[in-house]
Amino acid sequence: MKRFLCRKEEFLSKSFYNIKADLKEQPKPFLHPGTKQPITPDDLAPLFPMGFIMDGGIPDRYIPIPEEVREKMALYRPTSLIYASGLKKYLDTPADIFYKYEGTNPMGSHKINTALMQAYHAAKEGVRGLCTETGAGQWGSALSYAGQMFGLDIEVFMVRTSFRSKPGRKIVMEMNGARVHESPSNLTDSGKKYYSEDPNHPGSLGIAISEAVETAVKGKGIKYSLGSVLDGVLLHQTVIGQEALLQLNDAGAYPDVVIGAVGGGSNFAGISFPFLKDVLTGGKKTRFIAVEPEACPSMTKGELKYDFGDSIGSTPLIYMHTLGKDFIPAPIHAGGLRYHGMAPLVSHLANLGFINAVAVNETKVFDAAKTFVKTEGLIPAPESSHAIAIVIEEALKAKKENKKINILFNCSGHGMFDMAAFDKHIK
Amino acid sequence: MKRFLCRKEEFLSKSFYNIKADLKEQPKPFLHPGTKQPITPDDLAPLFPMGFIMDGGIPDRYIPIPEEVREKMALYRPTSLIYASGLKKYLDTPADIFYKYEGTNPMGSHKINTALMQAYHAAKEGVRGLCTETGAGQWGSALSYAGQMFGLDIEVFMVRTSFRSKPGRKIVMEMNGARVHESPSNLTDSGKKYYSEDPNHPGSLGIAISEAVETAVKGKGIKYSLGSVLDGVLLHQTVIGQEALLQLNDAGAYPDVVIGAVGGGSNFAGISFPFLKDVLTGGKKTRFIAVEPEACPSMTKGELKYDFGDSIGSTPLIYMHTLGKDFIPAPIHAGGLRYHGMAPLVSHLANLGFINAVAVNETKVFDAAKTFVKTEGLIPAPESSHAIAIVIEEALKAKKENKKINILFNCSGHGMFDMAAFDKHIK
Repeated sequence: MKRFLCRKEEFLSKSFYNIKADLKEQPKPFLHPGTKQPITPDDLAPLFPMGFIMDGGIPDRYIPIPEEVREKMALYRPTSLIYASGLKKYLDTPADIFYKYEGTNPMGSHKINTALMQAYHAAKEGVRGLCTETGAGQWGSALSYAGQMFGLDIEVFMVRTSFRSKPGRKIVMEMNGARVHESPSNLTDSGKKYYSEDPNHPGSLGIAISEAVETAVKGKGIKYSLGSVLDGVLLHQTVIGQEALLQLNDAGAYPDVVIGAVGGGSNFAGISFPFLKDVLTGGKKTRFIAVEPEACPSMTKGELKYDFGDSIGSTPLIYMHTLGKDFIPAPIHAGGLRYHGMAPLVSHLANLGFINAVAVNETKVFDAAKTFVKTEGLIPAPESSHAIAIVIEEALKAKKENKKINILFNCSGHGMFDMAAFDKHIK
Repeated sequence: MKRFLCRKEEFLSKSFYNIKADLKEQPKPFLHPGTKQPITPDDLAPLFPMGFIMDGGIPDRYIPIPEEVREKMALYRPTSLIYASGLKKYLDTPADIFYKYEGTNPMGSHKINTALMQAYHAAKEGVRGLCTETGAGQWGSALSYAGQMFGLDIEVFMVRTSFRSKPGRKIVMEMNGARVHESPSNLTDSGKKYYSEDPNHPGSLGIAISEAVETAVKGKGIKYSLGSVLDGVLLHQTVIGQEALLQLNDAGAYPDVVIGAVGGGSNFAGISFPFLKDVLTGGKKTRFIAVEPEACPSMTKGELKYDFGDSIGSTPLIYMHTLGKDFIPAPIHAGGLRYHGMAPLVSHLANLGFINAVAVNETKVFDAAKTFVKTEGLIPAPESSHAIAIVIEEALKAKKENKKINILFNCSGHGMFDMAAFDKHIK
């Protein structure tokens, strides 16, 4: 097997894959928090650009990628599908391990895929700017970049624990022209609630979302942008799995198990859904594993129910696995995974038995990252390292059972801004 | 013009281009410092792997890239050739600007091209480890990565001013299994000379080279590795320009001017030499501009003469533009450009009138970087930003003269580990 599998231009998708077209049973709708009735696109219109709302609502199986976005994706897509020969050799496993490496784009993670689409919709509709939250800063960087590409003002509320431990990310956003605030801040009513109690409050994605939503709603010509959770975001990330499908096919392989880390669920959905299609419609038996941190176990310890998407309770009610909107996760390094809820589509598919969730602790995650750097030469983001921890477990299980399985996972981003964390854990 | 020009797999070179095959007059040979006679490959054998020595000495015009290296290059090569539509629009210039972006590989700069080749040669010849120096850490990271890929021990002397201002780079090298020392150190006789006078001595590439050479010569099974200057290194970097030639041809364009930053000369040579071939053999009139920092002006203020490659005087004598081996540049952020000398091939071609050199100051460099981030969305390394400063000048000159020229430059790496410097200069 060649180590680096093909990155042919024709593998860059012309459309996104909408898994809802292949679901017999649809996820429960978002509810209006006041009326408790299903929300309509018009209800969401003050918050999001309509094009983005519709990306989550169109029933078509395939939704074309606008040429203006596809052209920008061509800077970094198709991304490499890598045959993990170094890791395989080190683990001495009969399993073949493949991964998509999403770290080779200007902002270093998969988040850029949906950022470009959301900025495209906003610009097309004459929106002046987008306001958002970010955990580790990957999403905020991606949206800042996309905003610059499409001429939008970007404002970002960054969770305090990440803001302080990853100063590089903040500078990246500022260099891309964004305004960045530490969250909880004293700039919004939502933020003040926590800030006034403790100006060093570590924050959470739920609180930062409240601040961003409030700012967008109160602002003029500004809309809100979310980097995960929503159907439209997951849709945009399917370019990852669709490429992997073609690349693996080209290499004569098909995965027995697909693995991804989950915070809000978007990178996991991105790599999984195009393969889940074959389970839903083609009789395949592929297993799907969503890996979350023990510190924020929304799928393994949370409840499947209607809950708010943010901490204050300003969003529609979402039917999802949740730890409760008031849950504040411990300040782990994988800031992108510190979210109390889970994408409704991922929750739904887990509930139907198509996806298994597991939780791993941070020490195991950093040990996995260390092994990966040593054997594969790429520095993974702490988020992506959650997936790697379970990849290693699956590969060792295959060794014990002497099974030649194919493992596919998503290495969703690089860890270039996590050096201090790596230094601490690895030494 | 499409913004992102093609990255077809077939554009990845099968061979390196050796410009010496097309030179009527060859550069003066390296001299043995004792005998003052031209050195032979055997003289260099204690220092370098023979395969690497021969890469600088074979007279063939094209030298095949070993399949084992080409396969590893396929992770990140061909790199994108980008049409700088954002920068063009911002400058409102009739000039079309194109750049190769070498930042999308695991270690983030062009240095990986020669690192893989040097590690390949060392491993093939049974060398246990390689010792080297690094300025900003790009070369050290690249060699650490390549060393890990080929199973070699890597030891790096990192110039103190960069060691302290870019802690991320050191951690990257350590994560890749390398041992990293602050230079000047008290581990070598060469280092002690400076360290004993001042334990906070900012260091220079010349001193770090002395330390690495001494360590390699005294060590067992260890050879020395250099990331720039030598003919073999420049040869390995020609993959950049060869790809650009094919990509531009595919886009129906040819450069009127080619621009690159110069420290030791390798990224500049990489993008230039395949186009210089057309000047030397095909009657083209392309201009070539090498951009260096005012703080280390080896080409614009240095003298073309025989000098040592390091500060102590332990290397062969090299005929090159030099500020003198004892020159210690001010601690600018572009640590990769703080070298007292220049690649003999670049010096030779400049002396023959094919290359023009210009020097720029750091404020102008950071202003250029700021403009580039704003308009192109990529964070360039401070080294690469030197090239960008002159690209902007040339584009504005074309505007004044209303000339529709094509400008090509090498964006040799990303600036992800330079956030503190950007933060300081940009605010």
